[in-house]
Amino acid sequence: MVNKLIKFEVLHICKQSGARLGKLTTPSGVFETPIFMPVGTKGTVKTLNPMEISEVSEGLILSNTYHLWLEPGVDVIKAHNGVKNMMRWNGAMLTDSGGFQVFSLAGLRKIEEEGVYFKHHKSGEELFLSPELSIEIQEAIGADIIMSFDECPPAKASYEYQKNSLERTLRWAKRGKDHLKTNQALFGIVQGGLYEDLRRHSAEELIKIDFDGYSIGGLSVGEPKEEMHRITKFLNDILPFDKPRYLMGVGSPEDLVEGVIRGIDMFDCVLPTRNARHGMVLSTTGKYNIKKLEYKFDMSSLDPNIESPISKYTKSYVRHLFRESEILASRIITYQNLLYIKHLMVEIRKAIKEDRLLDFRKDFYKNTNY
Amino acid sequence: MVNKLIKFEVLHICKQSGARLGKLTTPSGVFETPIFMPVGTKGTVKTLNPMEISEVSEGLILSNTYHLWLEPGVDVIKAHNGVKNMMRWNGAMLTDSGGFQVFSLAGLRKIEEEGVYFKHHKSGEELFLSPELSIEIQEAIGADIIMSFDECPPAKASYEYQKNSLERTLRWAKRGKDHLKTNQALFGIVQGGLYEDLRRHSAEELIKIDFDGYSIGGLSVGEPKEEMHRITKFLNDILPFDKPRYLMGVGSPEDLVEGVIRGIDMFDCVLPTRNARHGMVLSTTGKYNIKKLEYKFDMSSLDPNIESPISKYTKSYVRHLFRESEILASRIITYQNLLYIKHLMVEIRKAIKEDRLLDFRKDFYKNTNY
Repeated sequence: MVNKLIKFEVLHICKQSGARLGKLTTPSGVFETPIFMPVGTKGTVKTLNPMEISEVSEGLILSNTYHLWLEPGVDVIKAHNGVKNMMRWNGAMLTDSGGFQVFSLAGLRKIEEEGVYFKHHKSGEELFLSPELSIEIQEAIGADIIMSFDECPPAKASYEYQKNSLERTLRWAKRGKDHLKTNQALFGIVQGGLYEDLRRHSAEELIKIDFDGYSIGGLSVGEPKEEMHRITKFLNDILPFDKPRYLMGVGSPEDLVEGVIRGIDMFDCVLPTRNARHGMVLSTTGKYNIKKLEYKFDMSSLDPNIESPISKYTKSYVRHLFRESEILASRIITYQNLLYIKHLMVEIRKAIKEDRLLDFRKDFYKNTNY
Repeated sequence: MVNKLIKFEVLHICKQSGARLGKLTTPSGVFETPIFMPVGTKGTVKTLNPMEISEVSEGLILSNTYHLWLEPGVDVIKAHNGVKNMMRWNGAMLTDSGGFQVFSLAGLRKIEEEGVYFKHHKSGEELFLSPELSIEIQEAIGADIIMSFDECPPAKASYEYQKNSLERTLRWAKRGKDHLKTNQALFGIVQGGLYEDLRRHSAEELIKIDFDGYSIGGLSVGEPKEEMHRITKFLNDILPFDKPRYLMGVGSPEDLVEGVIRGIDMFDCVLPTRNARHGMVLSTTGKYNIKKLEYKFDMSSLDPNIESPISKYTKSYVRHLFRESEILASRIITYQNLLYIKHLMVEIRKAIKEDRLLDFRKDFYKNTNY
């Protein structure tokens, strides 16, 4: 087994909430957790350049294996010596396994023991992805942290389906780990839908295989928020204390606060960036849509409490740009939304340190419309 | 009459070509001419922020009166104390009169002596624009240099039509000048289609009214290039030596070279920015479309001869971004194209100073596919 280049330690537990403050050391940077990772689907965080990404992130971003595998493809990625070098990103990177996209985007699938046969979500081309191939693609992409290939069944899948899927995903996790030839950190992904016994089984079996961290998959896929919180909290007591816990595909500002309180260390979500392109601003005073008439003459900046290169623009101007479909509007709002999430995570970590995260949550709901 | 804040002087005439090297002094900056002005239609040069605009321009940009009048509208612009302040642009600005858009974009028109009745190019709303109103809107926008309201007839308009239109445009020019209450510099616009006697008449009458500079309108609207060159050259001997000459809506790299040789001091065109969004790269080695398969593995930068913040990206990466419709592709190519045009104008001015602009043109055509 090659020596791993990442390290994780829990620095403090919030006495009020039980939330974890941690330190994640990677070859490309040292990060305090809980941390939010902006999503850079296809080799860029949409609308931003690498300098801007470093300004609005903590230096750790996610890339999507499925999308990068299809375009530009592994050959082009290899020609650049990896995606970080291709996009000129000096920070750290995490990749997903491609599993989620295969099961949410791709057309007609056939799931077999060896892997998944499916159709390209645009061209219809027949494709195949397996645990081994996912690892190989992720090795080519070259992220610091990579994921096991998993099936992500729909939230409403039956117990029977979840159980069978889960067993196969566990076998896939083992195969992926055995196949890995680099010292990239590899996380296992806990599945099992909304069934606590399946979640426990999944977590315990993954822990036996021994991963560098544990992701929680199959949540934030349409189930009620209470169910997501219940499963997250449930896993909090099962997952190993000294390994990072990553809640995949979460979330909104409120989901980040709630996730941290339930023991989560890492998050990613397209919400701040995708909603930006629809005019939805996330700010310290809450969320709002810049399109609204009430901002037509509003001479204040997008966020009254965050100073940044975009605070010079008025809401009135950004509204105008957005209404006229100017790309600069998407740039400005994307910047604001990620900067706000970064700001929120800093505040959350501060509240953990000071053992007052539940008080923070109370103020957060009182002072915003989240 | 208020004191004008702009000044223009010719510094040198190229002994080889007759091209003019000049100095244009404005309240917002001093510029060497010939100069190219990027187009910032709706309060931004598409895809770029003000810092980037200042990097890829010479500090003087154009804004479109017609578009800004419709959105965000004069009330919002006034609330920002002008468009420069609204978009946080510290450089200089020139506005067109809105005439060109009324005659190229807007629906059903009725041209009367007092002005033009027409329909909004999207909503169909009934609108009216006159020489006086155009001046008032341009006063609100607050550019350093503004334009007289003119009719811009189609290139194929008859002599009779051109003549009548021209006479009215001359009356409009006088009315506009009489209406102006600021010390913004006001240019007259020479019309007259491809008829030299009409062009002469237009220029001579405008000179009698006395403007701060003279624009050449009604070219680059579909006529053969030779016709554009013929009219430009013809006007070179008529327009006053000590006033700037602005060839509106031009141009491509080759049109810039040819225009300068025919005595032009100022240019604007959407070509570098619009074509960027279609994947067309302008570079010191010529133009090419980044979509082409031949760039799939091309590890060189977009332009081998210009160092800039975007030279770190490979053609291969930019091609990937463009194929995936990533906004960053449009940003990068827009930046490259404007930076190349800026570079070209620097080279042109250098060649004028050194009395070798015709040699420069020969090399320009030999070394590129322009």
